[in-house]
Amino acid sequence: MTAAAPSATGGLVLPTYEDVVTAAGRLQGIAHRTPALTSRTANARTEASLVFKAENLQRMGAFKFRGAFNAISALSAEQKRAGVVTFSSGNHAQAIALSGKLLGVPTVILMPQDAPAAKVAATRGYGAEVVLFDRYSQDRDALGRELAETRGLALIPPYDHPDVIAGQGTATKELIEEAGPLDILLVPLGGGGLISGAALAAKALNPGIRVFGVEPEAGNDGQQSLRSGKIVKIDVPKTIADGAQTAFLGHYTFPIIQSLVEDIVTVSDAALIETMRFFAERMKLVVEPTGCLAAAAAFTGTVPVAGKRVGIIISGGNVDLAAFARFVGPSA
Amino acid sequence: MTAAAPSATGGLVLPTYEDVVTAAGRLQGIAHRTPALTSRTANARTEASLVFKAENLQRMGAFKFRGAFNAISALSAEQKRAGVVTFSSGNHAQAIALSGKLLGVPTVILMPQDAPAAKVAATRGYGAEVVLFDRYSQDRDALGRELAETRGLALIPPYDHPDVIAGQGTATKELIEEAGPLDILLVPLGGGGLISGAALAAKALNPGIRVFGVEPEAGNDGQQSLRSGKIVKIDVPKTIADGAQTAFLGHYTFPIIQSLVEDIVTVSDAALIETMRFFAERMKLVVEPTGCLAAAAAFTGTVPVAGKRVGIIISGGNVDLAAFARFVGPSA
Repeated sequence: MTAAAPSATGGLVLPTYEDVVTAAGRLQGIAHRTPALTSRTANARTEASLVFKAENLQRMGAFKFRGAFNAISALSAEQKRAGVVTFSSGNHAQAIALSGKLLGVPTVILMPQDAPAAKVAATRGYGAEVVLFDRYSQDRDALGRELAETRGLALIPPYDHPDVIAGQGTATKELIEEAGPLDILLVPLGGGGLISGAALAAKALNPGIRVFGVEPEAGNDGQQSLRSGKIVKIDVPKTIADGAQTAFLGHYTFPIIQSLVEDIVTVSDAALIETMRFFAERMKLVVEPTGCLAAAAAFTGTVPVAGKRVGIIISGGNVDLAAFARFVGPSA
Repeated sequence: MTAAAPSATGGLVLPTYEDVVTAAGRLQGIAHRTPALTSRTANARTEASLVFKAENLQRMGAFKFRGAFNAISALSAEQKRAGVVTFSSGNHAQAIALSGKLLGVPTVILMPQDAPAAKVAATRGYGAEVVLFDRYSQDRDALGRELAETRGLALIPPYDHPDVIAGQGTATKELIEEAGPLDILLVPLGGGGLISGAALAAKALNPGIRVFGVEPEAGNDGQQSLRSGKIVKIDVPKTIADGAQTAFLGHYTFPIIQSLVEDIVTVSDAALIETMRFFAERMKLVVEPTGCLAAAAAFTGTVPVAGKRVGIIISGGNVDLAAFARFVGPSA
């Protein structure tokens, strides 16, 4: 809807802000309208006015619920009867499983054989069928497509899907509606689903805003891609930000990022741990490492924010308690 | 304002719901309007519909800011110029110090010599004058009164003060305005400031509500007092709920509790730790032990809640990170 918004590229029909608005209607009363929080300490530290969208307080503990629910809702009645399939060992798996349960749609989740038993159990607990695969010898994407074809299932991948992107955009829509115009929006970046939706909403509601993606230092494929103008694939990066351990941007997300995102920056794992401690100690929030990316970029000065009104997306809070205790405890 | 509300007893003029409304006006735009959060997991666990007022996300990390700010705001211009004094080693000290700073009122805080250095520094950081005393040889209350008299300061104790009580009531006012009518309200209980304000607001807005106080098993002076009809004093109880380590109810709080509170129940420290883990793992919140009291009463079935709409006050989140890591970590 904005002049800058891409609409179609390489044969793909990209989502627009209108799709974010449609998603918001579907999520009304189903997703939590998560709070937009402020902290004087954070403001003093950055000499900025920060507002944090606390998607760690979302259902499932992450923004992923928005995109998954929206994507399943958008299916035809026939597709809903047949069911959906996805691949994920992370928050998207549980988001799809929960959304399927709420919408009465069968779900099949491809998970690696070595995924944590607790995550497999939690996903099955929502009524999903879990299909395990060997991630060292089997190709996840090919398996997903094969399952989709042989069983007539709709494939909803974790980020590279227009309705997933549109759903994720609703978090930023809520943030700007509540907080008012912002100068800068900082968003964690993995495969780009969150930032693509965020940028669509932000630029439509607040055209002057500058949107930055933040990814872990060890996995800067997004930064390389944006700067080189083509999708760069890297090895799975070694970082505590497990939600951003993606190796490449998507065919839907990359052109949106190219068109609407100012820059992509990186932060270290050490900065993520320091930010996790800040959230726990000063804002009383449990935030997973990936959820700390955006705030860490502001706290470290990687994106200069002094004097600005800055939106910060906290993407999720799903961190194992034992690991969390190690991160924030005295030995950290 | 309600038929059940006490107005005066033993020469004391007790606060009413009108005072809570006045306090809400003073706090507008100053205190955070903290979110009212829900959790399907918590609902499933209790077969109830729970709504959590997250005062751990309040300024200072606790509801105490409300009462302190309201009490200082209510002083005359002359009293404000002279300044205030209080005694506390906990959240009330920092709440008074911060409120004084915001309102330009000098503050003097009596703290025990063996208070954690970090708390003394934090209180001084807000510009308060800290006066240390030896809690084994000196009487805190007498010292406070002496300072008040010799220096012309207004004494604002942690809970037994009408404007403190009225300020604390604003949290429940917000909760019921946002969540709608409730059957039950569960409130942490120390000296009774929070529950007195909560009960004034709850009974005015929602006359059919039943209000329960929850205190640590080791320190059930409130329960003994309510059941015996007189203020029972106990030794300082040994419990991890440091915000509820009070030894007796107040002269203002006790008659309000007698008149408006259904019952006072107790929970164990073990239940508090389990609840702290639940908040961190499922609701992504850092909650101090005292802040877990009300939820623990619902989770343990100490107050039967099945089938009811239940408000739960999370009073604060000020727990040392190292201690928090021990509580929620694998060795807990």
